[in-house]
Amino acid sequence: MLENKHLLGLEGYPGKDIQTIIETAFNFREVLDRPIKKVPSLQGVTIVNLFFENSTRTRISFELAQKRLSADTVNFSASSSSLKKGESFKDTSQNIEAMKIDAVVMRHPTPGAPKHLTNFIDSVIINAGDGTHEHPTQAILDMMSLYEKFGKLKGLKVGIIGDIIHSRVALSNIYGLKIMGAEVTLCGPPNLIPKNISELGVKYSKDIDEVMEWADALNVLRIQKERMGRGLVPSTREYRSFFGITSERLKNHKKEIVIMHPGPMNRGVEIDGEVADGDQAIILDQVLNGVASRMAILYLLCGGKKVEGE
Amino acid sequence: MLENKHLLGLEGYPGKDIQTIIETAFNFREVLDRPIKKVPSLQGVTIVNLFFENSTRTRISFELAQKRLSADTVNFSASSSSLKKGESFKDTSQNIEAMKIDAVVMRHPTPGAPKHLTNFIDSVIINAGDGTHEHPTQAILDMMSLYEKFGKLKGLKVGIIGDIIHSRVALSNIYGLKIMGAEVTLCGPPNLIPKNISELGVKYSKDIDEVMEWADALNVLRIQKERMGRGLVPSTREYRSFFGITSERLKNHKKEIVIMHPGPMNRGVEIDGEVADGDQAIILDQVLNGVASRMAILYLLCGGKKVEGE
Amino acid sequence: MLENKHLLGLEGYPGKDIQTIIETAFNFREVLDRPIKKVPSLQGVTIVNLFFENSTRTRISFELAQKRLSADTVNFSASSSSLKKGESFKDTSQNIEAMKIDAVVMRHPTPGAPKHLTNFIDSVIINAGDGTHEHPTQAILDMMSLYEKFGKLKGLKVGIIGDIIHSRVALSNIYGLKIMGAEVTLCGPPNLIPKNISELGVKYSKDIDEVMEWADALNVLRIQKERMGRGLVPSTREYRSFFGITSERLKNHKKEIVIMHPGPMNRGVEIDGEVADGDQAIILDQVLNGVASRMAILYLLCGGKKVEGE
Repeated sequence: MLENKHLLGLEGYPGKDIQTIIETAFNFREVLDRPIKKVPSLQGVTIVNLFFENSTRTRISFELAQKRLSADTVNFSASSSSLKKGESFKDTSQNIEAMKIDAVVMRHPTPGAPKHLTNFIDSVIINAGDGTHEHPTQAILDMMSLYEKFGKLKGLKVGIIGDIIHSRVALSNIYGLKIMGAEVTLCGPPNLIPKNISELGVKYSKDIDEVMEWADALNVLRIQKERMGRGLVPSTREYRSFFGITSERLKNHKKEIVIMHPGPMNRGVEIDGEVADGDQAIILDQVLNGVASRMAILYLLCGGKKVEGE
Repeated sequence: MLENKHLLGLEGYPGKDIQTIIETAFNFREVLDRPIKKVPSLQGVTIVNLFFENSTRTRISFELAQKRLSADTVNFSASSSSLKKGESFKDTSQNIEAMKIDAVVMRHPTPGAPKHLTNFIDSVIINAGDGTHEHPTQAILDMMSLYEKFGKLKGLKVGIIGDIIHSRVALSNIYGLKIMGAEVTLCGPPNLIPKNISELGVKYSKDIDEVMEWADALNVLRIQKERMGRGLVPSTREYRSFFGITSERLKNHKKEIVIMHPGPMNRGVEIDGEVADGDQAIILDQVLNGVASRMAILYLLCGGKKVEGE
Repeated sequence: MLENKHLLGLEGYPGKDIQTIIETAFNFREVLDRPIKKVPSLQGVTIVNLFFENSTRTRISFELAQKRLSADTVNFSASSSSLKKGESFKDTSQNIEAMKIDAVVMRHPTPGAPKHLTNFIDSVIINAGDGTHEHPTQAILDMMSLYEKFGKLKGLKVGIIGDIIHSRVALSNIYGLKIMGAEVTLCGPPNLIPKNISELGVKYSKDIDEVMEWADALNVLRIQKERMGRGLVPSTREYRSFFGITSERLKNHKKEIVIMHPGPMNRGVEIDGEVADGDQAIILDQVLNGVASRMAILYLLCGGKKVEGE
């Protein structure tokens, strides 16, 4: 039903398919509000979660999506794998496919690894994050959450705040939002902003207050503490004073800005606890929409049967 | 159907609810004797096992209970978690709840952690052991096993033997047994006995033979080898000679005493292998009753449908 | 339906039962080609995967087999186990059985561990590899793959190449193939060949080209890099030149030889990448047949209901 067999990234992804995924995800949101949060759509379908990097929320979110679609799911993490014995990526992948797997959800530290995988196997591949490249399901759940709040994406003004250059969440959001007709402004330390912003069709401001004045919504990225003090980012305290979404800043802006964060948060660094827990934050809606979006993506790509009660 | 939404501990727990859980557990024991050991009671219900401490038997027991109730179950262990990335306990919990989890089974090294969790999330919380505080499902399965053997708990004389002060199993058993009208005597090295035994309503004896003469049943706790020789406990050999349930001791008592152990056992230290494997031990019944008790608790707290064939 | 309750090894295993397993596995192969690759045969049956050694493919293969038979499955790996706390093998096993487990799939580094387990528990035990002893399900899937290719096992000429003495795959294949009437020739460095080859009823040749001239099929074993240069095996390069299944060697033989490998492969050492990916290799069929064989074994040993549509 979607144009592409795989979901590798949102660069060049058809806008109508993003629309279809989001609409289907809203159907699944209703399922998640029922006492029995389960549909038989993917019964007999087998999905492998192939995680070569640690992950909590993404792995659990996918696993719940799979179980609620009645799929059979097998987890495979790199630490317990034959990769230790030196087996090639190609052999591991082909072995998994030979077991008649319908779809592979893959997280990998190397940009392009999920695309590389499509050379070896015929199963549906879903990118659950590949290095600093893309994290398309996160961007889809973010867009779904914006859509839920504003009823549209076209013309929406979205600020993405933080370490953009190392963020797969940022890149997938930029691609997706531009395709859907939103406007995007990046904000963060100049050395953490990609050089090709005009190519990406986005703007840059180093003034967070200016961006807050302009934006309908902010997507606040986690700042990696490991980067602090290494020349790339100043101290935690300085970062907060320049780019942190603090309670004071939020109060200084009359306009209602919607606050998003992909998690995990550093409360008191890129976002104040009071903001994260406040009325303008939709951070926990994002989490719920994550399960619904992933159900929609798996359902549409694995050819599931009609949703019960639809 | 139970007065409390959560099962955090047995301190102050309603006796009639302990009774209801045990009676329901006996229904599930029958299910476990069928060729198809599965009922659809919790279909579409999602349960997360949130283990911040290693565990074999408790985790597997809960997982089997969940699967035999047809619940969907997701495992989350601390080692693979975002906690490593510094996410707060509150955020991890709220994220998990936002995914529409019905119940959380939690083991944590910090006393009170499951209660703390009830401040952040609305899901049902079941304590699977919190530090040296409580382990209520273990105490319920122990009481169920006593009930199976004696047909009553009221007036029963139970000795709890070993390192009481560090044992969540002991504390939950003391609370539960006292509520149900049993008499409890603690026995072990004096420095491993809590100071507030009169408050707890229990007695203390340092003479294991005296306790064996008195008791209907003994709950023999694992003695942590790590504590040996650190001033708290004498050597393994000395411990055995003073407090070990040895074959000779058991033979010296004409009275039939029922022997329980929560496992894992140190055979030859706190209990002789011959005793553990003997007729008076109900240690493997405890294990089976553990699955049945946990099925009952999950069923009653998660509002399951009627058990098939009931 | 099979003579033995357990599947511990193929030494002395009834030939008619190997035949039954392979025939049943071909039925399950058909299930795996359906869009819904799942049958309700083992609904309500509980199986524990008890892995005391790391494993990717075998664990996933068993887990998929179990889920596609609708069994409930629990994974238990040694690293997260009470074994660390010093619990005995006997106690761990009996505890697991007390939870009403129908079958245990066990991998253990000690030869004979699965057999030892039958002394303690009544559940069905399936050996998933015990040290350097046996790996019977691997040999069954290998034989199934040969049967698929040649339509028979009787009279077939099979070469097993590599480090035979440390290989449970080799030993199970030798037993199984001899029982089914095939001829077996071992080939590899002399110090890696067992002494009792006449007892085993097999031949030995140190000349790989001679074996290739003779054989219908080769089972190429992984050579453990850890053994290289320790006096047992020469260098990687030397090994390849003496025993490697290289593209040149394969071209030099007019006869069509079927190439098998149990994985994981060292491409460029015991087998060339071109050979592994070539027309004569049935390595990925082995993987698929592994799932089908394990479904058949679990189905036959756990008394499953008739396969849907049979």
